[in-house]
Amino acid sequence: MQEREGGAALAPGEAVLVVGAGAMGRGIALVAASAGHLVFLSDVSEEARRRALTAIAEELDGGVRKGRMSAEEASAIRDRIRAVAEPQSVASQVRLVIEAIVEDLEVKRVLFASLEPLVPPQAILATNTSSLSITAIAAPLARPERVVGMHFFNPPTRMKLVEVVSGLATAPEVAQAIRDTAVRWGKIAVMARSTPGFIVNRVARPFYAEALRVLAEGAADCATLDAIVREAGGFPMGPFELMDLIGHDVNFAVTSSVWSAYFYDKRFQPSLIQQELVWAGRLGRKSGRGFYDYAAGAQRPAAAEAPPCLDRAPSAVAAVGEFGPFSALLERLAAAGVVVHRRPADAGPVRIEAADVWIVPTDGRTATRLAHEYGHADVVVLDWARDWAQTPRAALARADGCAQDSWACALGLLQRAGIAVTPLDDVAGLILARTVAMLANEAADAVLAGIGTPRDIDTAMRYGTNYPLGPLAWGEATGVARIVGLLDRLAELYGEDRYRVSPLLRRHLWNGRPLASGDEGERK
Amino acid sequence: MQEREGGAALAPGEAVLVVGAGAMGRGIALVAASAGHLVFLSDVSEEARRRALTAIAEELDGGVRKGRMSAEEASAIRDRIRAVAEPQSVASQVRLVIEAIVEDLEVKRVLFASLEPLVPPQAILATNTSSLSITAIAAPLARPERVVGMHFFNPPTRMKLVEVVSGLATAPEVAQAIRDTAVRWGKIAVMARSTPGFIVNRVARPFYAEALRVLAEGAADCATLDAIVREAGGFPMGPFELMDLIGHDVNFAVTSSVWSAYFYDKRFQPSLIQQELVWAGRLGRKSGRGFYDYAAGAQRPAAAEAPPCLDRAPSAVAAVGEFGPFSALLERLAAAGVVVHRRPADAGPVRIEAADVWIVPTDGRTATRLAHEYGHADVVVLDWARDWAQTPRAALARADGCAQDSWACALGLLQRAGIAVTPLDDVAGLILARTVAMLANEAADAVLAGIGTPRDIDTAMRYGTNYPLGPLAWGEATGVARIVGLLDRLAELYGEDRYRVSPLLRRHLWNGRPLASGDEGERK
Amino acid sequence: MQEREGGAALAPGEAVLVVGAGAMGRGIALVAASAGHLVFLSDVSEEARRRALTAIAEELDGGVRKGRMSAEEASAIRDRIRAVAEPQSVASQVRLVIEAIVEDLEVKRVLFASLEPLVPPQAILATNTSSLSITAIAAPLARPERVVGMHFFNPPTRMKLVEVVSGLATAPEVAQAIRDTAVRWGKIAVMARSTPGFIVNRVARPFYAEALRVLAEGAADCATLDAIVREAGGFPMGPFELMDLIGHDVNFAVTSSVWSAYFYDKRFQPSLIQQELVWAGRLGRKSGRGFYDYAAGAQRPAAAEAPPCLDRAPSAVAAVGEFGPFSALLERLAAAGVVVHRRPADAGPVRIEAADVWIVPTDGRTATRLAHEYGHADVVVLDWARDWAQTPRAALARADGCAQDSWACALGLLQRAGIAVTPLDDVAGLILARTVAMLANEAADAVLAGIGTPRDIDTAMRYGTNYPLGPLAWGEATGVARIVGLLDRLAELYGEDRYRVSPLLRRHLWNGRPLASGDEGERK
Repeated sequence: MQEREGGAALAPGEAVLVVGAGAMGRGIALVAASAGHLVFLSDVSEEARRRALTAIAEELDGGVRKGRMSAEEASAIRDRIRAVAEPQSVASQVRLVIEAIVEDLEVKRVLFASLEPLVPPQAILATNTSSLSITAIAAPLARPERVVGMHFFNPPTRMKLVEVVSGLATAPEVAQAIRDTAVRWGKIAVMARSTPGFIVNRVARPFYAEALRVLAEGAADCATLDAIVREAGGFPMGPFELMDLIGHDVNFAVTSSVWSAYFYDKRFQPSLIQQELVWAGRLGRKSGRGFYDYAAGAQRPAAAEAPPCLDRAPSAVAAVGEFGPFSALLERLAAAGVVVHRRPADAGPVRIEAADVWIVPTDGRTATRLAHEYGHADVVVLDWARDWAQTPRAALARADGCAQDSWACALGLLQRAGIAVTPLDDVAGLILARTVAMLANEAADAVLAGIGTPRDIDTAMRYGTNYPLGPLAWGEATGVARIVGLLDRLAELYGEDRYRVSPLLRRHLWNGRPLASGDEGERK
Repeated sequence: MQEREGGAALAPGEAVLVVGAGAMGRGIALVAASAGHLVFLSDVSEEARRRALTAIAEELDGGVRKGRMSAEEASAIRDRIRAVAEPQSVASQVRLVIEAIVEDLEVKRVLFASLEPLVPPQAILATNTSSLSITAIAAPLARPERVVGMHFFNPPTRMKLVEVVSGLATAPEVAQAIRDTAVRWGKIAVMARSTPGFIVNRVARPFYAEALRVLAEGAADCATLDAIVREAGGFPMGPFELMDLIGHDVNFAVTSSVWSAYFYDKRFQPSLIQQELVWAGRLGRKSGRGFYDYAAGAQRPAAAEAPPCLDRAPSAVAAVGEFGPFSALLERLAAAGVVVHRRPADAGPVRIEAADVWIVPTDGRTATRLAHEYGHADVVVLDWARDWAQTPRAALARADGCAQDSWACALGLLQRAGIAVTPLDDVAGLILARTVAMLANEAADAVLAGIGTPRDIDTAMRYGTNYPLGPLAWGEATGVARIVGLLDRLAELYGEDRYRVSPLLRRHLWNGRPLASGDEGERK
Repeated sequence: MQEREGGAALAPGEAVLVVGAGAMGRGIALVAASAGHLVFLSDVSEEARRRALTAIAEELDGGVRKGRMSAEEASAIRDRIRAVAEPQSVASQVRLVIEAIVEDLEVKRVLFASLEPLVPPQAILATNTSSLSITAIAAPLARPERVVGMHFFNPPTRMKLVEVVSGLATAPEVAQAIRDTAVRWGKIAVMARSTPGFIVNRVARPFYAEALRVLAEGAADCATLDAIVREAGGFPMGPFELMDLIGHDVNFAVTSSVWSAYFYDKRFQPSLIQQELVWAGRLGRKSGRGFYDYAAGAQRPAAAEAPPCLDRAPSAVAAVGEFGPFSALLERLAAAGVVVHRRPADAGPVRIEAADVWIVPTDGRTATRLAHEYGHADVVVLDWARDWAQTPRAALARADGCAQDSWACALGLLQRAGIAVTPLDDVAGLILARTVAMLANEAADAVLAGIGTPRDIDTAMRYGTNYPLGPLAWGEATGVARIVGLLDRLAELYGEDRYRVSPLLRRHLWNGRPLASGDEGERK
């Protein structure tokens, strides 16, 4: 793109003002100073300034100790950070202001109104808000086109993602300049339109919501669900341990805020379980207790594990229908010495037939429903896995009328392929499948709403939440028809708006085009 | 279960402190004193204490007059109740505190915080709240595990039910001790998990909501709907007269509170009609007017009644398909001299064919829809009844194109069996069927959410609201397939989340297991 | 109807008190004085009274200049308006009070409570509220039966409609007297039951909501959508220019108020886009910017227009199936020299086959979906038009896989009939069809809820919003099956309660009776 006045990325020689010396502000200041800028870090509290400088010094010392930089470099960076009491006193010297103060619309407006007349005309006013409208923050100013969101994640020094958020009035060249600046600072930047939760805090909702829902239905305990999500899904943390880390007060507040901003859309509905934890003061790690107990000596409960049934594994099975990403499981069975006969699809579900039992990769129907619909009592359903060639674990559920022998046979079969099995109650879409499908759905809806490009949305989720794969790429790899089919079955069962399929997903089902196209700016 | 420290039911020799001398507090005090406990009844208002003691004395005198107890017994009970101003002054002497003060979280927290350091270690702090979270009330205390809900119904001396409500921290042995205590006090106790409305105030919502919805669609007036629910349903009161008794301010507040606590779930949505009554100050009996007029001399409007058509009744009919609980109607017709030919199910609906008219026990489709779908103009639909062998009344609706002659024929047929007929406009699921189906649905969802066991939920509804049958037992007697089918048709017609079927009901449809199993703690 | 005490329309000799001299109050005063009444116009602010009298004088002078009345008539009208400070001072002299003060329940209640003891017994207390419950306003009075809504539209001197709104207690003869009075004053009056938004502000919601939704999906820009609605729909203004005229603060507030009063019904859900405009202070014409820029010299963006493809038009087409209101398009094509072969309906959609392309009048399925379902890549869908015999414009969308040649062929064909074509992205129900269907749906639901008769609801929409046709009459002309079919497809695609079909529409589909019957008081 062409550079217009004030549209270029910051040059190292240009100064930055960071307002607010809390955890976010001081982290941002350190990032900017490390990139070579003179940084003014302002805070009205002397105590806050003092603590911020100490924390920065410690972080730099740590970097030196670990050999990430020389003592000279660390010292130079430190020298480039100047604590000031009043941001107004240095406003005329800076090209970029980043505010990281309290999440209060009025307070931010007052700050920017006081700074706007003081900064040079080409200066950009950026806000690190995670929950307020950029449009609303900018509205009262004389030049709202120079306001933009620059949303770092906690801690800014380590999290790679920056969401560059445009309000209604934000000039494209201002957003572009911030994007380029973030990249120069070593960050991965994505462009987002100002909407509730921006990209990450919106698209991530189902990761928590589906787990809470499955827990509420009593299908398993937290430790079991966390284990599946981590080991079969490849997520760095399970949803419950992650909520415990984030803090339930914070997580519940974000959910509630996105939910009400989206006019109480059921897709973002908070959970009574989390509400109870907040009421109980069980806020997670920081309070010593959440889903788990963090008291000294407390033992993490073990995930449920199926008993060893290796001796019940059959020596041959039939694989009926088109297995898609589940094919790697068949290969793994074959490699383990199980004879796998392939048969074409028939009127029944895609399945592995092992003795009397049908093992059905979940399509959103429960095992009990499949048993009823096909008149075949011995049905078990298999959750999805991130990579069947490698997965160390899989979740399995059985129909209410499934014989014990058949269940043991299914367990044994997977164990023979070296896969640990986690039994769940017969819940629709188990846990990983419904989570992945809902994430892809939410990401598609964000694309449809014009919040970001497919590429930026996948990038944001990988670097803002450390997902192993972007939700759209994951949906693509799974197959749009499988995602849509699973969601349609969940919608059928629950009868709730919550599981509605994004019109964009259906469009891809109909037009056959890739979901996670690499073309930026192209949404179909 | 084993008794642990503080886990035993109260012995008669142990003292009780009831805080708050309003209608609930003094009733609870009387119940406890009647069971042999020394009871301290505290209230900061001297006036309230005085009125409470007077009311208790009158109630006891009434008991003596009616021969329920001797004067000596009454006098002994009265002597066991001691009014005190400050609950703190006696806290050290009691094993159980029951608070029955204002429904305000902060006020209850302050009370318990002041009592906790004073009561003996094995004492239990119980709250009679009907709307606040036990978890939230307990959270700030040092020992939240000793807080539990002990929810009496109004008036406590006469209503048998006590909901024993556990918050997140409540110790199982504390809940068990309260349950056992309630039983010793002559009550019927159920265990509930702390959730909005607990069991009764949640599961009862559809009793009001469906009636208000049918009224809003203009299908009949209040008196007509009340008559059907009472006479065909066997409920002690119809929904409108019951709301008039409870008071619309109270009923609307409970509905609104459950609705918002369940994140505006449409199943709990309040009604504009009731909102208007509250705005108008037509609060029911207590204000002299609600749905009905209670002014001196006001006449209760009569329920709609079909004209006598006995002479139009056919002498023979055909009964096509499987009638389930409607079979008793066929027997009743036969006993009245109507020849009933049975025919197996065909492509049409289950029906009685009488001359040209099809009489269809409602499956949730309107008569007009059935007429359209089967190309048969003369269709009437028949509401459900609690017991077809006995029901004195039934509701009937006709298709828009049904001939007058056919309508008269249907009316005459039922009248010949001695059944009074109430005509309704052609509303889906009429009134009793949709009410019963939605109650069973709500009860099933409460089971799925782990709020109580099937047995406890049915028990709670029978003794907390005086329903003739628990909703799950009623659903079982009707047939899960009929319940699910009716709800599916309502959902189809209205297109609203409100009529979604509980996943647990579908599971029972698929696994064929009984809904209202007697096994406690077992939910499938 | 019979006249009862106080039930007659106002005679010219009876005086009127209008409280509040803002834009609405002074307009109402002028209307009443023009009808011959002595009018007291009260306002506590002397400044407001002065400005009101000036504005009235100017309006009358304008009328004289334009020859609408003689100078004597104008002078007589002016003389009949007396400004007073305190409404109480003249209350005893009037037969009718119309309050037009601030929209605040408490303030209105205080006003009416102060006037009620002063006015004669046969006086009527009317309120011009647009958003408060008549029931709630009337409740505290001694005689709530004499309170009624008399809702004028802005500006009262020019807008013909008056909604006469009855609360729970309003006496029928009071409402009738106000209706008759409004008619004597030259207005068109409709009767409405007090519910959120009454008739017009409720039924009009989809006109804005559907346009905002289509915009949010990025299917076209505002100018393009406005052009279709105006030119193909025959509406005097498109939704975006109309919202800009009304002001987004006002329009968003009305939407939010109706939405929350209907318990967050998704059918009335506000739009994030409008929320952003309000936050940005882009309130429409009055602030100089809204969807459009009203700065001096700003150019209105042009609507999208398909390129001329006349030379690609085929000389003959086949018309397959039943075209209903689209038949006039076929005649227009024939008149333009295109040979039109008629073929009976087959398994495919109703369509025009032109070379390889299918042109399908929208049934709610997208072109891409149709292409997928019928295995025919070259599909375009055609929006509806108010009158195919005359329409100067039509909107068209193509399937994602439609060949460029086929698209040009479809464009050329319509252009040959003299119809300008607006291309849209492939959005379900395009813009006019979904707007008309949702308006008819909302109107039907208002009938079902007993808010007004079909005739009054159609009348209200024509004179309160200047729609070219009432929504029910429009639905009737389009065909109930087409309306229901389109909504069912939207509901299928979006999976939201929002697109649920009114039970009354389905009933008409099943009973085949006209939707917009002229029979007042009859709702089926």
